[in-house]
Amino acid sequence: MIDQNILTGEDYIESLRGRKLNVYLMGERVNEPVDHPVIRPSVNAMAKSYDLAVEEPDLATVISPLIGERINRFLHIATSVEEVVLQNKMQRRLGQLTGTCFQRCVGMDALNALYSVTFEIDAQHHTAYHARLKEFIRHMQYHNYIIGGAMTDVKGDRSKLPSQQADPDLYLHVSKRTAEGVYIRGAKAHQTGCINSHWLIVMPTLRLQPEEVDYAIVGALPVDAEGITYVIGRQSCDTRSLEGEIEAGNADFSGQEALIIFEDAFIPNDLIFMNGETEFSAMLVERFTAFHRRSYVCKSGVGDVLIGAAATIANYNGVERASHIRDKLVEMTYLNETIFATGIASSYQSHATPSGAYLCDELLANVCKQQVTRITFEMARLAQDLAGGLLVTLPSEADYRSAEIGPVLEKYLKGREDVSTESRMRILRLIENLTLGRNAVGYLTESLHGAGSPQAQRIQIQRQMRLEFKQQLAKKLARIQESRS
Amino acid sequence: MIDQNILTGEDYIESLRGRKLNVYLMGERVNEPVDHPVIRPSVNAMAKSYDLAVEEPDLATVISPLIGERINRFLHIATSVEEVVLQNKMQRRLGQLTGTCFQRCVGMDALNALYSVTFEIDAQHHTAYHARLKEFIRHMQYHNYIIGGAMTDVKGDRSKLPSQQADPDLYLHVSKRTAEGVYIRGAKAHQTGCINSHWLIVMPTLRLQPEEVDYAIVGALPVDAEGITYVIGRQSCDTRSLEGEIEAGNADFSGQEALIIFEDAFIPNDLIFMNGETEFSAMLVERFTAFHRRSYVCKSGVGDVLIGAAATIANYNGVERASHIRDKLVEMTYLNETIFATGIASSYQSHATPSGAYLCDELLANVCKQQVTRITFEMARLAQDLAGGLLVTLPSEADYRSAEIGPVLEKYLKGREDVSTESRMRILRLIENLTLGRNAVGYLTESLHGAGSPQAQRIQIQRQMRLEFKQQLAKKLARIQESRS
Amino acid sequence: MIDQNILTGEDYIESLRGRKLNVYLMGERVNEPVDHPVIRPSVNAMAKSYDLAVEEPDLATVISPLIGERINRFLHIATSVEEVVLQNKMQRRLGQLTGTCFQRCVGMDALNALYSVTFEIDAQHHTAYHARLKEFIRHMQYHNYIIGGAMTDVKGDRSKLPSQQADPDLYLHVSKRTAEGVYIRGAKAHQTGCINSHWLIVMPTLRLQPEEVDYAIVGALPVDAEGITYVIGRQSCDTRSLEGEIEAGNADFSGQEALIIFEDAFIPNDLIFMNGETEFSAMLVERFTAFHRRSYVCKSGVGDVLIGAAATIANYNGVERASHIRDKLVEMTYLNETIFATGIASSYQSHATPSGAYLCDELLANVCKQQVTRITFEMARLAQDLAGGLLVTLPSEADYRSAEIGPVLEKYLKGREDVSTESRMRILRLIENLTLGRNAVGYLTESLHGAGSPQAQRIQIQRQMRLEFKQQLAKKLARIQESRS
Amino acid sequence: MIDQNILTGEDYIESLRGRKLNVYLMGERVNEPVDHPVIRPSVNAMAKSYDLAVEEPDLATVISPLIGERINRFLHIATSVEEVVLQNKMQRRLGQLTGTCFQRCVGMDALNALYSVTFEIDAQHHTAYHARLKEFIRHMQYHNYIIGGAMTDVKGDRSKLPSQQADPDLYLHVSKRTAEGVYIRGAKAHQTGCINSHWLIVMPTLRLQPEEVDYAIVGALPVDAEGITYVIGRQSCDTRSLEGEIEAGNADFSGQEALIIFEDAFIPNDLIFMNGETEFSAMLVERFTAFHRRSYVCKSGVGDVLIGAAATIANYNGVERASHIRDKLVEMTYLNETIFATGIASSYQSHATPSGAYLCDELLANVCKQQVTRITFEMARLAQDLAGGLLVTLPSEADYRSAEIGPVLEKYLKGREDVSTESRMRILRLIENLTLGRNAVGYLTESLHGAGSPQAQRIQIQRQMRLEFKQQLAKKLARIQESRS
Repeated sequence: MIDQNILTGEDYIESLRGRKLNVYLMGERVNEPVDHPVIRPSVNAMAKSYDLAVEEPDLATVISPLIGERINRFLHIATSVEEVVLQNKMQRRLGQLTGTCFQRCVGMDALNALYSVTFEIDAQHHTAYHARLKEFIRHMQYHNYIIGGAMTDVKGDRSKLPSQQADPDLYLHVSKRTAEGVYIRGAKAHQTGCINSHWLIVMPTLRLQPEEVDYAIVGALPVDAEGITYVIGRQSCDTRSLEGEIEAGNADFSGQEALIIFEDAFIPNDLIFMNGETEFSAMLVERFTAFHRRSYVCKSGVGDVLIGAAATIANYNGVERASHIRDKLVEMTYLNETIFATGIASSYQSHATPSGAYLCDELLANVCKQQVTRITFEMARLAQDLAGGLLVTLPSEADYRSAEIGPVLEKYLKGREDVSTESRMRILRLIENLTLGRNAVGYLTESLHGAGSPQAQRIQIQRQMRLEFKQQLAKKLARIQESRS
Repeated sequence: MIDQNILTGEDYIESLRGRKLNVYLMGERVNEPVDHPVIRPSVNAMAKSYDLAVEEPDLATVISPLIGERINRFLHIATSVEEVVLQNKMQRRLGQLTGTCFQRCVGMDALNALYSVTFEIDAQHHTAYHARLKEFIRHMQYHNYIIGGAMTDVKGDRSKLPSQQADPDLYLHVSKRTAEGVYIRGAKAHQTGCINSHWLIVMPTLRLQPEEVDYAIVGALPVDAEGITYVIGRQSCDTRSLEGEIEAGNADFSGQEALIIFEDAFIPNDLIFMNGETEFSAMLVERFTAFHRRSYVCKSGVGDVLIGAAATIANYNGVERASHIRDKLVEMTYLNETIFATGIASSYQSHATPSGAYLCDELLANVCKQQVTRITFEMARLAQDLAGGLLVTLPSEADYRSAEIGPVLEKYLKGREDVSTESRMRILRLIENLTLGRNAVGYLTESLHGAGSPQAQRIQIQRQMRLEFKQQLAKKLARIQESRS
Repeated sequence: MIDQNILTGEDYIESLRGRKLNVYLMGERVNEPVDHPVIRPSVNAMAKSYDLAVEEPDLATVISPLIGERINRFLHIATSVEEVVLQNKMQRRLGQLTGTCFQRCVGMDALNALYSVTFEIDAQHHTAYHARLKEFIRHMQYHNYIIGGAMTDVKGDRSKLPSQQADPDLYLHVSKRTAEGVYIRGAKAHQTGCINSHWLIVMPTLRLQPEEVDYAIVGALPVDAEGITYVIGRQSCDTRSLEGEIEAGNADFSGQEALIIFEDAFIPNDLIFMNGETEFSAMLVERFTAFHRRSYVCKSGVGDVLIGAAATIANYNGVERASHIRDKLVEMTYLNETIFATGIASSYQSHATPSGAYLCDELLANVCKQQVTRITFEMARLAQDLAGGLLVTLPSEADYRSAEIGPVLEKYLKGREDVSTESRMRILRLIENLTLGRNAVGYLTESLHGAGSPQAQRIQIQRQMRLEFKQQLAKKLARIQESRS
Repeated sequence: MIDQNILTGEDYIESLRGRKLNVYLMGERVNEPVDHPVIRPSVNAMAKSYDLAVEEPDLATVISPLIGERINRFLHIATSVEEVVLQNKMQRRLGQLTGTCFQRCVGMDALNALYSVTFEIDAQHHTAYHARLKEFIRHMQYHNYIIGGAMTDVKGDRSKLPSQQADPDLYLHVSKRTAEGVYIRGAKAHQTGCINSHWLIVMPTLRLQPEEVDYAIVGALPVDAEGITYVIGRQSCDTRSLEGEIEAGNADFSGQEALIIFEDAFIPNDLIFMNGETEFSAMLVERFTAFHRRSYVCKSGVGDVLIGAAATIANYNGVERASHIRDKLVEMTYLNETIFATGIASSYQSHATPSGAYLCDELLANVCKQQVTRITFEMARLAQDLAGGLLVTLPSEADYRSAEIGPVLEKYLKGREDVSTESRMRILRLIENLTLGRNAVGYLTESLHGAGSPQAQRIQIQRQMRLEFKQQLAKKLARIQESRS
């Protein structure tokens, strides 16, 4: 039977305590990240993935064929179309419940990609990665752990290959090999949800050259392994979490991004899932990004929150029946559902890999992500349009609470008579949070760059656009006979 | 066993001959539409739906549970998600093969919508429409007939209801009732693929008022029934079909739109599928348009042709490696796949109706169609960009064929040395056909207005956007407590 | 005193008769182009530039300092900001009056560009081009002639330079030199308004290499000079001009595009304005395209017609008060005025060249043209949206006129009671003409490719975007101190 | 001779000290706003308008005909087209120098609008407002003061008129009248640059009804007048100004927005410029917003900074030569110049009012502002695209400065070898500042709502779109004869 230690969000939060992580934030070492008010909302967001499993088990859990028990869907290898689609539905739901990046997708997408890739490496190289990975997954499922996937290297000079960098550490690589395992050096940037994970999986970030053997390393480490340092990045308005709860906009939930530095951290042999097979790095990156680009369906859940907030402020302002207001809400819905539709279309078009694990449609996954890079900004613009200028001129919660100036604000910031000024302030701060503040980081910028920048999707679309086939269609209709075959 | 008379496209074309249709085109009565050079390409396009059934039976045929035989998918009632999705895949394929509107979707969507609606009318009114419809469908399947669905009334003054029009005939209605059936009067505009169909199904076009009983009529008539007149509409460059085949751009295939006038045409009782149940007209319209808006996935097939043509002319001009050229092809692919993805997402999200027939997701169907109304125009712009100015300054095929001026054109219209001037002309004419000419009618304008104009989709999106639910999501995150409610 | 032979549009049309032009159209040689029904509308459009000079002299005429007489503005060298701006206002007005490309801008822009360039060639090379050009201009002004500017070569394989082409004639060049002048060979494609001009000026189409001396030729020839052949290009729906006048949409006016072939045509010395000064070809192209890209302000005049037509059909349909209809008309106006504003901004920002002639702002001219390449397509989409599906399903004028079917159409195509069916048909055909038909060629495709394709504008914008300056602004605010200078 | 006390930015800053303003910020009363680190950057931005007058006098100063002295252009009444245009050029320059809203335009636009409106009120009502206003302007010019224009009321329930509000104070109005002047009550929201101004002018915010006499009040008050309270609004990342200077992104400059509450503040008769002439309120609002919407040309100056920053980070990342990078910079330039071009086109098309003051073109002013509401968000998206994900995951300046973790960051955040990590951090923080942080408030949200929300511009465009004229153009070309008319 499954380990009962981590079932609820609360269990999970407890499980994070007391680890000796090497974490920095705003120039200081953080002793207990769980209790740091700037970090805590990101822990809460991850916790919601546990609570959802309790509250909506059909959506967020599944019986694992690996251990024969009901597990969190985030730890599951999808072996049917329906299961790939349900990942998306769970993601949208969590976006709705948290209004932010809940950070658990990277691990799910990494496991699912690795499952099929290790199978194919083994088939070619007679290695044993797949069995090891399955064992690792069983362990994760049994304990209900969270896995962070660490892919994006810091990259240094982007016009140079990993092996050409002045400093070899600018791409993570094996620094030493022993009989027991490997030591790794390097750094992974923009790591979503790591210090609130239990395990990390490191993976190469691009197609490797045959000679770049040391860079072709995939393996798992506990988050608190020796030799790992975390530096948490700044976010717009992050210190609002230190102020009053209205100011935060979304006081409960946020994302988390960190730079992870590996200084000769150790991976034992049984946790290594690729080791030098450079020709498989591209396959791994492509499968992972296919899954992960389609995972941006989560933004349609956040978009639901933004639409709801925009509709609420329109109500509070008493303009909800104006035709241009309704039309902007329709436009937001139309855009938001386009994210959802392109994402689930990719999932619905999944196919089985030789390993039995399913892989989503790569072309549509890239189409989905590319839509996300444009739509979220237009959503933000429309929401700000509906919010009105008060969005950025609203006095502080402290002023509102002050005996001196509070009553004046109560009087003058009143909209419709039956709506409290505080409610109006709260909804405006939520829109600020999502379009300029802390969760704009995830909703906007990360929608651009997460899982690869817009140009990365265009390159993948180019690879898969089947121009030759389409040219044949056109030539047939135009009745073109070409001598040059 | 199924009737063997109409199996191939050729059989179908023969089946249309010798009917006594009352057809007008450019001021003249047309004796044999099949042989009229302006009409014939639209017959060919429809014929392709038969050929595809022969060539790709998995895609375009299915075993009908109604007659236990393999039939054309266009005549099938979808009773699973997969079957709804396969409609879309067949539609894209036919778009690829014809580069135009192949006109057979209306009938398919009408049958599928009527199947569930008649079931629900019967449940409420103890009528027998559903059994009659099934019998009719069996008959269609047995003979492999084509059905045109006639919904859009001419509408007169749009600020008035059917019953308020100065002339009652501006909406089709029952003009006389007898024991044997009903007589109908009125006209249906923009009817896609009717004179090349075997049967017509008339349906109301909007939500009816309780007193508009005579307008609540659904029934089937043979295309050559007495009392029906067809006036075929003009299309941009339609007379190019009378000129050289290069000039036509796509000499083989085109769409067809006609005005159908019913002057006391008769529908016998056993072909009546709704008769006065005004409260079901809205349900019928909504289900039909849900199916039909998602059917615009066909445009992604036509888009494949346009992408192929644009890539071909770029090749012929010798610029296919320029980064901005590649990028425009990527953009076209991205847009085109967005149509496909949103459409199939709607189909994949189908659910069963009480009748057992499946109905696609209405919200996503409207999102798909709304995308089509924008994307096709942008696709046309990009294709014209890639084509170059010669697209609209190219001399005629007759000049090219002339002994006098032909050689000069051969010399000066040469692009890359290894590409013939004729090939270059042909591909340019195909792009002209799709973006300005005859098939621009279907690819652009019909993409706007077919299955309802853009605003019609927005109204449906508004109905289904669940604002209240989304407002609750936002208020929860903003921690808003409302005394009211 | 000025020659009184060509004052009105009618005079002008007479002046074109009886020339021995070598003109081909649809495979046949045309004896008298003026009287050819397909060509005549393009003559009419040009004629309007004469009528406007009579009707609105402040707008369309000016006192020429070269001859001291009032002349048509199209023949004037602008020597003040105001005069450059008035070109734009005249262009918009003619767009409004003709709803098409009136074809006279190329000559105006060519003269204005050549005026300053010849001055600068002379300054460097001690040549006498400028005085010759002035003499030529005086002659044009005195006779009120129309000049076509022939720049775009057919180009062959675009990945090769003029001197690298397999056939040297793919770029126009000097084929023979004599004491009296030069003979030229080659072809100019997409020539707007040539057979209805009196004179042609040939110019190189791109930056030339030092060795491409024979390609660096600028000179004037009468349209009916020996050795010139014209092949008029097809246009969407061009043969509608042979049908009923309703079908044409805009029966009076159209553009005209032709391929011009020069087979050893002669230019005498006093009509040569550049001859081998290869290093000035880029300057000429850039100045000409600067003027000409800004000349696309004319499309805002055509856009006024399209907005008017869209508003009219909305009225006729009885939906003009619907908020989404109003909003689409606002959007069209907003887009259309953006064309106008960016164009006149370029003109208002003109500066004096050493010759005294004014040159518009090049960056803004390119911004204007780039806007045109996008906006016109969106305008067409919106107009078609407002038009409704009848735009492409409307029966023919012949049907409407027929005794048999006409009354039925009168009955069923009726919109609002107080609007005749004929009026409704006419306005729909005009929208068809502008968005799919004959004048869509000028409004859409030529808006893309005329004066250089979209990418050509982007290259010019890139050249003028002053990145270094802007980087300094940013670095100053970010307080960046760079050791590396 | 002009008062020499306030010439430079430094003089100006000194002039603000020691006033007894009633200012609140984040729950506390601020004794000396000038020295408050959160407020100071907004004072600096305003100060730049003085420094520019010293450094570029041709651009930022002009000889005033009212006092015959050289004055700051912000205090000048424009009486020629050139002067209206120079306002725009000065605005763009200040945007370039500050990268934020420098807040001085409102006063300039208010004076220029009032100048013509008071003239016309006097002409109709034989009042003396115009002479009073001129006297006031002379005083401002003599002392080189800054004027804030206070227009936008808090509005309460937007579905109700001023006189219908539950609380009459929700629109500013006269609360008491005496022989010496009037007392006013109410609040103005979103007031840009007030506590760093010397004077305020209050104005009504909308078209008033005849009975709303008390709301039709225009007058001037010193910023430190009795009865005025200021509550400064929160801005995204405003507390970054309390942290290290890198974190602020743009440490020197910011905008400022406040709520101003008037509790029976007094305006003496000679500073009243409208008093009960309700029928002129719409004219005042329209003229002010015409000027002010075109003033958003300033955003093209801020856009220059953003383009420069985006180009710089591309350089620092070593990707500046990639074609998609260049293309995005071209797109940004194209968009940015569209703002500039539409704005100056409005200014260039200015016309004289009866007072002699010039008024910009209203239609084009609204087109300009509408472009701004869309373009700035797309600019932000493109800049974030070019910036890369580090934009939102960058560790803090404190981490970078720390002995412990700093060297590790130096190593791993290195891009190109010749660029310091600090420079890279600085430019990223500047982009964050402009697209998410403090100056995103002005660049994005205020671009939407300042000078009226997007819908406000659409209403004005609708009023000026001359549909009837355009319909006549279309009907003429379609040869429509209407019996009605």
